[in-house]
Amino acid sequence: MHRLYLDWAASAVPYPDLMESMAKDAVDLYANPSSAHAPGIAAKNALAEARVSLGDSLGVPAESLYFCSGGSEANSIVLLSMLARPIHAAGRASVVISAVEHPSMHEQAAVLARMGIEIIRVKPNASGCIEPEALGNAMKPDTVLVSVMAVNNESAAINQLTVLSKTISESSKGRPVLFHADAVQAFGKIRLKPLELGIDALSLSAHKLGGPRGIGALYLHRPFPVLAKGGGQESGIRSGTPNVSGALACARAAQRATNELDTNLAHARMLEHRLATGLGAIAGATLLPRGRTAGDSRYSPYIMSVAFPGLSGETLARALDGEGIAVATGSACSTGKRDGRVWEAMGTDKALWLSSIRVSTGRTTRAEDIDRFLDSAAKLYARYRL
Amino acid sequence: MHRLYLDWAASAVPYPDLMESMAKDAVDLYANPSSAHAPGIAAKNALAEARVSLGDSLGVPAESLYFCSGGSEANSIVLLSMLARPIHAAGRASVVISAVEHPSMHEQAAVLARMGIEIIRVKPNASGCIEPEALGNAMKPDTVLVSVMAVNNESAAINQLTVLSKTISESSKGRPVLFHADAVQAFGKIRLKPLELGIDALSLSAHKLGGPRGIGALYLHRPFPVLAKGGGQESGIRSGTPNVSGALACARAAQRATNELDTNLAHARMLEHRLATGLGAIAGATLLPRGRTAGDSRYSPYIMSVAFPGLSGETLARALDGEGIAVATGSACSTGKRDGRVWEAMGTDKALWLSSIRVSTGRTTRAEDIDRFLDSAAKLYARYRL
Repeated sequence: MHRLYLDWAASAVPYPDLMESMAKDAVDLYANPSSAHAPGIAAKNALAEARVSLGDSLGVPAESLYFCSGGSEANSIVLLSMLARPIHAAGRASVVISAVEHPSMHEQAAVLARMGIEIIRVKPNASGCIEPEALGNAMKPDTVLVSVMAVNNESAAINQLTVLSKTISESSKGRPVLFHADAVQAFGKIRLKPLELGIDALSLSAHKLGGPRGIGALYLHRPFPVLAKGGGQESGIRSGTPNVSGALACARAAQRATNELDTNLAHARMLEHRLATGLGAIAGATLLPRGRTAGDSRYSPYIMSVAFPGLSGETLARALDGEGIAVATGSACSTGKRDGRVWEAMGTDKALWLSSIRVSTGRTTRAEDIDRFLDSAAKLYARYRL
Repeated sequence: MHRLYLDWAASAVPYPDLMESMAKDAVDLYANPSSAHAPGIAAKNALAEARVSLGDSLGVPAESLYFCSGGSEANSIVLLSMLARPIHAAGRASVVISAVEHPSMHEQAAVLARMGIEIIRVKPNASGCIEPEALGNAMKPDTVLVSVMAVNNESAAINQLTVLSKTISESSKGRPVLFHADAVQAFGKIRLKPLELGIDALSLSAHKLGGPRGIGALYLHRPFPVLAKGGGQESGIRSGTPNVSGALACARAAQRATNELDTNLAHARMLEHRLATGLGAIAGATLLPRGRTAGDSRYSPYIMSVAFPGLSGETLARALDGEGIAVATGSACSTGKRDGRVWEAMGTDKALWLSSIRVSTGRTTRAEDIDRFLDSAAKLYARYRL
């Protein structure tokens, strides 16, 4: 059975040549980049090269990038920095985040809330987007951090970060407020330049781009005190022996994604159109968020959720898996039972999101793969729907 | 110029075949192990297999192991858990650590101290070991965590963890006290079984064993609440998409180190003996800690610090580097200027430790490499000493 992978939002299929060059780099650049000797300096130079390359891809200075283990850790560094604020600033503080953030923001924020930091969660509109007005209204005079993800991993909604940045500036009236965006589902897929968008901090992960697991980066317009301290690597923002070969592979994946962005985006739009059109022909099948259409610029074309009313999404996903087709029922980031937090925040009917699956595509997904998925989904829906 | 690497304590030379199998695994096991579909289950099973294998190497149940990004993060999880203690337990608490811990413990503890958690630092004796009596005296009725590293990365001192564990049990009089050991320089090099030694928590890193960077593990006899939360992977102890191919490579490196432990240890002892004997023949050269001898069972034979009085260790290391020989002047874990914290805690004379270098060996170091080092060191010492 030929396997069809339509769960790229959970993890992209890695570029085999990047994995191979990483293995070679790990052997060649074997020394610790903090060591002063020649092999240490070779490792240090390679790490610097990776940083410059990633900086080019993001359009930011190399020294504003800090390698870490991935998106979750990058998000965690930002949120936990709230516990490391200088004593003179350690009075009351609030954090505004969207209600549909990834668990590494959502759950971490809940921990901070128990520690006395006020967490204000802003609900998106029914389309999944954070409205500037809602964000502005949520901010308080003691708000020091605002975090809104660039692309939601379930609704595919793209947030208008430039507009939100302007809202934050206006609402904060000159007070410093850090604007952070989790760009794990956005960077390398849609156009995203922190400096143009007015973002102060940005999280990204290599494995969503076809790079390796266990490596990602945090962009910081200005460094801030962090909670997790150690050997002081990555300018003190992220301690631990740097993963040099991983950083190089991360930078290469980012460079590739950036160079191929237009091509891949056009391809994803073609697939999205085919998918949306095909689903439109299946009676009952409903794109989520309600009102999403083929080519709808409010959504990332790489991700599409669709409900099959009268059939549980989990059942359909399992049946598709039986035919060799891998789709998701939502975020793979949290383990355990199905979580409708994102859909509930948008006011989506429970029966609808429970019957939904998520289809996400990548660089090697072909038009005929979409057709195969559509055929199977239509057949299985007809067979199993109530 | 043939390069000679004698800085294995900073980072081991990776096994090339492990790097290659990791690259292959990354491609084959491309899905997210939290995904419910077939490729996700394949990744999940591989991760479980890595955990079982690592458990076998450590002699602990697989479910007591949590993969993370490495030793620094493992240490950080343990210390930051102090901020995540249940509210009913959140009264005064103290942490006892040795004064010679790795920066990921030492610096992190300083952060906790600023947050109101009492940090009690126990100095080692002049040989670099933590004395049971000193540890027992340092503990207080509110001590909840004790952390002592298994092998120090500069002095090479091996702590008697079994004895210290007994001391902790006696001093705590039945109260639960978590005993953590940073085993980054010990695991896979000296015999170390947490269950036999009475350790509740243990940190390890793959890259010190010839495995890849960016992966390590935390052993926990019993799980505890952690501060960094997210998708709940690794049973909630360490969130973030699991690095499956890295975990497999980590487990394989650990298995290899465990299987070859006796052979490698005998080899390291032979090298240590040759090194100590050769250094003894260089007038003035002084092994650190003072009193260390060839074959001294109080020290890890993989690491040897030696002072060349009248010549700065940095100058000598640079001169050796000029001859293609890589040695360290201390921990590569902190970046920046030379830090004599470990030596000062032991009461080592400053002029002595400033004139010291660290030589650390590994599985591919040969006897003739030691001879080459000795020749160069003797020549350079004669040339440059004051």
